[in-house]
Amino acid sequence: MNTFGRKFKLSIFGESHGEGIGIVIDGCPVGIPLKEEDFKADFDRRRSGARGTTPRQEPDLPKILSGVYKGKTSGAPIAIVFENTNIQSRDYDEIQSIPRPGHADLTAHNKYKGFNDPRGGGHFSGRITLGLVAAGYLAKQVLKEVNFDAKVIEVGGSKDIEKTIDKALKEGDSVGGLIECRISGLPTGLGEPFFDSAESLISHLVFAVPATKGIEFGSGFEAAKMKGSEHNDEILDADGKTASNHAGGINGGITNGNDLVFRVAVKPTSSISKTQHSYNQSKNKTEDFNIVGRHDACIALRIPVIIEAVAAIALADLMLIKE
Amino acid sequence: MNTFGRKFKLSIFGESHGEGIGIVIDGCPVGIPLKEEDFKADFDRRRSGARGTTPRQEPDLPKILSGVYKGKTSGAPIAIVFENTNIQSRDYDEIQSIPRPGHADLTAHNKYKGFNDPRGGGHFSGRITLGLVAAGYLAKQVLKEVNFDAKVIEVGGSKDIEKTIDKALKEGDSVGGLIECRISGLPTGLGEPFFDSAESLISHLVFAVPATKGIEFGSGFEAAKMKGSEHNDEILDADGKTASNHAGGINGGITNGNDLVFRVAVKPTSSISKTQHSYNQSKNKTEDFNIVGRHDACIALRIPVIIEAVAAIALADLMLIKE
Amino acid sequence: MNTFGRKFKLSIFGESHGEGIGIVIDGCPVGIPLKEEDFKADFDRRRSGARGTTPRQEPDLPKILSGVYKGKTSGAPIAIVFENTNIQSRDYDEIQSIPRPGHADLTAHNKYKGFNDPRGGGHFSGRITLGLVAAGYLAKQVLKEVNFDAKVIEVGGSKDIEKTIDKALKEGDSVGGLIECRISGLPTGLGEPFFDSAESLISHLVFAVPATKGIEFGSGFEAAKMKGSEHNDEILDADGKTASNHAGGINGGITNGNDLVFRVAVKPTSSISKTQHSYNQSKNKTEDFNIVGRHDACIALRIPVIIEAVAAIALADLMLIKE
Amino acid sequence: MNTFGRKFKLSIFGESHGEGIGIVIDGCPVGIPLKEEDFKADFDRRRSGARGTTPRQEPDLPKILSGVYKGKTSGAPIAIVFENTNIQSRDYDEIQSIPRPGHADLTAHNKYKGFNDPRGGGHFSGRITLGLVAAGYLAKQVLKEVNFDAKVIEVGGSKDIEKTIDKALKEGDSVGGLIECRISGLPTGLGEPFFDSAESLISHLVFAVPATKGIEFGSGFEAAKMKGSEHNDEILDADGKTASNHAGGINGGITNGNDLVFRVAVKPTSSISKTQHSYNQSKNKTEDFNIVGRHDACIALRIPVIIEAVAAIALADLMLIKE
Repeated sequence: MNTFGRKFKLSIFGESHGEGIGIVIDGCPVGIPLKEEDFKADFDRRRSGARGTTPRQEPDLPKILSGVYKGKTSGAPIAIVFENTNIQSRDYDEIQSIPRPGHADLTAHNKYKGFNDPRGGGHFSGRITLGLVAAGYLAKQVLKEVNFDAKVIEVGGSKDIEKTIDKALKEGDSVGGLIECRISGLPTGLGEPFFDSAESLISHLVFAVPATKGIEFGSGFEAAKMKGSEHNDEILDADGKTASNHAGGINGGITNGNDLVFRVAVKPTSSISKTQHSYNQSKNKTEDFNIVGRHDACIALRIPVIIEAVAAIALADLMLIKE
Repeated sequence: MNTFGRKFKLSIFGESHGEGIGIVIDGCPVGIPLKEEDFKADFDRRRSGARGTTPRQEPDLPKILSGVYKGKTSGAPIAIVFENTNIQSRDYDEIQSIPRPGHADLTAHNKYKGFNDPRGGGHFSGRITLGLVAAGYLAKQVLKEVNFDAKVIEVGGSKDIEKTIDKALKEGDSVGGLIECRISGLPTGLGEPFFDSAESLISHLVFAVPATKGIEFGSGFEAAKMKGSEHNDEILDADGKTASNHAGGINGGITNGNDLVFRVAVKPTSSISKTQHSYNQSKNKTEDFNIVGRHDACIALRIPVIIEAVAAIALADLMLIKE
Repeated sequence: MNTFGRKFKLSIFGESHGEGIGIVIDGCPVGIPLKEEDFKADFDRRRSGARGTTPRQEPDLPKILSGVYKGKTSGAPIAIVFENTNIQSRDYDEIQSIPRPGHADLTAHNKYKGFNDPRGGGHFSGRITLGLVAAGYLAKQVLKEVNFDAKVIEVGGSKDIEKTIDKALKEGDSVGGLIECRISGLPTGLGEPFFDSAESLISHLVFAVPATKGIEFGSGFEAAKMKGSEHNDEILDADGKTASNHAGGINGGITNGNDLVFRVAVKPTSSISKTQHSYNQSKNKTEDFNIVGRHDACIALRIPVIIEAVAAIALADLMLIKE
Repeated sequence: MNTFGRKFKLSIFGESHGEGIGIVIDGCPVGIPLKEEDFKADFDRRRSGARGTTPRQEPDLPKILSGVYKGKTSGAPIAIVFENTNIQSRDYDEIQSIPRPGHADLTAHNKYKGFNDPRGGGHFSGRITLGLVAAGYLAKQVLKEVNFDAKVIEVGGSKDIEKTIDKALKEGDSVGGLIECRISGLPTGLGEPFFDSAESLISHLVFAVPATKGIEFGSGFEAAKMKGSEHNDEILDADGKTASNHAGGINGGITNGNDLVFRVAVKPTSSISKTQHSYNQSKNKTEDFNIVGRHDACIALRIPVIIEAVAAIALADLMLIKE
């Protein structure tokens, strides 16, 4: 459903081309300074601007409706709303009869019996993640001493990121990317048995972010190739500091005080300018077609701040549960 | 916490060397035939026997305490309990002052202020997954027409599985493995926005299984290297059948009717016979030590049936939510 | 917390004198016609107008931000927001140092360490129930064939309602009331063991409504005085129709197809014009004081539609769980 | 469903005449001393013995399967199981075709399509509350300084309890009762807006207890007859101590430090020896019939310790949420 969390609880809503989108955050501790401008740095990272990101320039102005009094969180739920502006639904209308490959167009249509809003992906649009970034900003304030750092480390299998994107743009194509997130300064003891391991909550939220295809913690998929004698991290002291960090900062689902490290695979943007071939619902046959409109050549570029946000949300929840 | 699910709800309990372990399954539909012997085939797959699995031979006899009447599920919660037998706590006592690298010994000790049961990993033992396999059996009955098939496809980076394990055994070492799970015959429409995508629920549960380090759906990490024109799956008909399956059977978090495919990386068993070097709490210094006792040389061999179980649990929950 | 429900899920937010209030409703079935004017009849019942209700005349204009497409519910979360207007915070500022007897002023202040918004009761204001009434309207559409009828049946212990209120108004005092809610046309089988009996969910929500002091189902408190031979409802047919209805339409927590009947006791409005004596925080002593501002002489008059709403919400949730 | 709580979480299971019943308690703080005999005093209060209670003498021996290590709670889920013994299913078989008035026989049969276990009420039996009492004992340990005192204050409308019961016994009838619960020494600040008021959680659990018909807090139904000037509790100091206690220890859903007081109406036992008239399913007509077997003449006598238990469970959950 559209809610998540046990103590730091989120309810998310909105469609890409509807009246607005937003989030309600319940269970945030009192006394955290918060004003609408505070979100700006994180929103800017998500937004775009770099080559390879969409030219849709939403102002992304958050309006805090509740939960803040005299500039500080009050203990009541914090509702944050974003009006939708700069909408060009025309872009999507033309191709409505062809569900876009790689998108939720067809699965959503079938699941909701045609009642869902298809414009711009509707409720399945990446735009909805704006609320996540806002919640992530707050979660980071809950984890005041913790440092979150996610970045794109590879695009299209290459570390030469700009060049790869330029090539994709030229071809009217898109390209996937790899994101690494490193979290340092985390307290030990975050994570709950049996089902709510730190990895469980983080991966749960990461796969709520559109376009993610995989996640690995610490040694990750490399671990499948390793021996125990190589993989085991030698413990150095009573706090749990280790010589290596194949565990990625987590043992038995519980943070061990070392850096929490994970990587996320992001698929290439599904909307491309190149001609594609797929199923036309009104004609009941496959055919060539083109997607007109604004696309990111590499959606992975906009996702690191969202990955930080969801990690912060999961860890803030675990922190408040632990307390 | 130790509960999971919205309609098909689990509560899991127990410690490796305590009185017993078990699970309570709430929300199971009525009328499903169930007797204690039905679990046997799945338990046998989990148990061991193959080279490279532990010689601890638990009888694994489930006792159904409630929720079944005249051989069929009654709509009341189904409690299944397993007595612990064949316990050799001595194996672990000797090394209690050295938290085992790769295990939850130290994180659990610190989190629970020393009140946790450390014997055999306590509540963090892989033995607790027996309840998951039982719940998975039931979940598969809820999804009667669906076929689940998980298997080890690589060990230690090699497809020559037996040879690799023999070598590890000889060295007193252990080795990681890669599991692929393929689910066919799934209905479309399973998965809920925004937070409860099919991938979110499956990965949440997969990371509750001890020793898992990564998960990828469909093209997975390969997607990060691909172009959109390669990755997009051409849609062939109104049901959503696609020519390729990079999506791994899921679009926008919702099953699309194609095979749901994911892979899970499993680390090498942390307990090895080889001498290791780590921190001794009573001496407050690092030192050489050896773990005595029974270990799996490749825990990945026992995990496929658990992976099937958690996938079935997640999908049964989504199926019952959808209905 | 500020969320409720398993399938028909609510998140509520807002403060009396903040930017706005609202609700997010998740899990509503698709295809229900909904426009902003649809709420009007229920809002009018909640609002006031009758003698004995507050002269604060909010326009109560709902804005649907999401979840409705082409005039019908789309399956995405429905966010409904109400701007706060006509705010006279001055009324409350004068007495801020004296926590009002019968209100949450002091408990909220202490719980939230002074960070909560105290204006007009903040998040504890009855105004927040506007969102409940909106959700209740939708819940009634989910239960299309069901009839909800709640009304005030006594005020100040008397059935002569207008007279009693006139007297209270003249004295600058307020008066409590008794509400009866009768729900007919309900399907059988709503209610879940063990914890989610129909009574459990309804009473849970009723006590979320400010000013409620008691609830009784069917025979209620009278049952404590009765004999089994009097109280048992003779069953008349296989559907569960009964000759009498002491059960109030529920057996074992499950609706039995007879009218669901319950009564709710509402305390007299805590804010009165009469001089009161209580604790002054800045002077650290008790003293006489007067509350200036707009008050309901009998808040019970505005509550029947809220009682219908919460009953509908609980029953719609149980209906969707059952399906 | 059969789960309750956010931090102090319960899962309950079992049927009256099945293999056993039990409860799993998750989220209990570590370090609380617990052994099986500790429950005895509370179990004895629930059991019976007094005139007017059933002669079914279950040994009620709890077996702690998990979550306790070296005599103290370990942080892992605590599973407590009770074997069913002394079962006389014959008593119930004879009347199986006549759903007993006042019981869940017919509603459960219809809801579960006949798959439910009907023997002794199955999962709807009062026997299941044994697990609640066990959880209540633990909850009281979490609230170490708090005193819970529930007792029957009226039976059949009379304070002459023994006499009233003797008369009912002689007539082969049963009689209802009124229970008052007084909780002193509670910290302030327990209770969460909007939906999780202290009253909401307590009433939710009280209506999970079979035979309850009503609940009122503080002034309760009397409040509906009062004026604001009478009802408002004068506040005496900054901690919230009040001169009167019409609020019953709760303002705005949050405990205010005064005694938390509520009353619960319990209906007369539905199973009586007297001849009744009701519907016979196999004959499809109503007829005279008699219930053979063991009954309580006044079930209210056994319920005070259950009421204490559910109040303690709700308040322990709120306490752990607050921390």
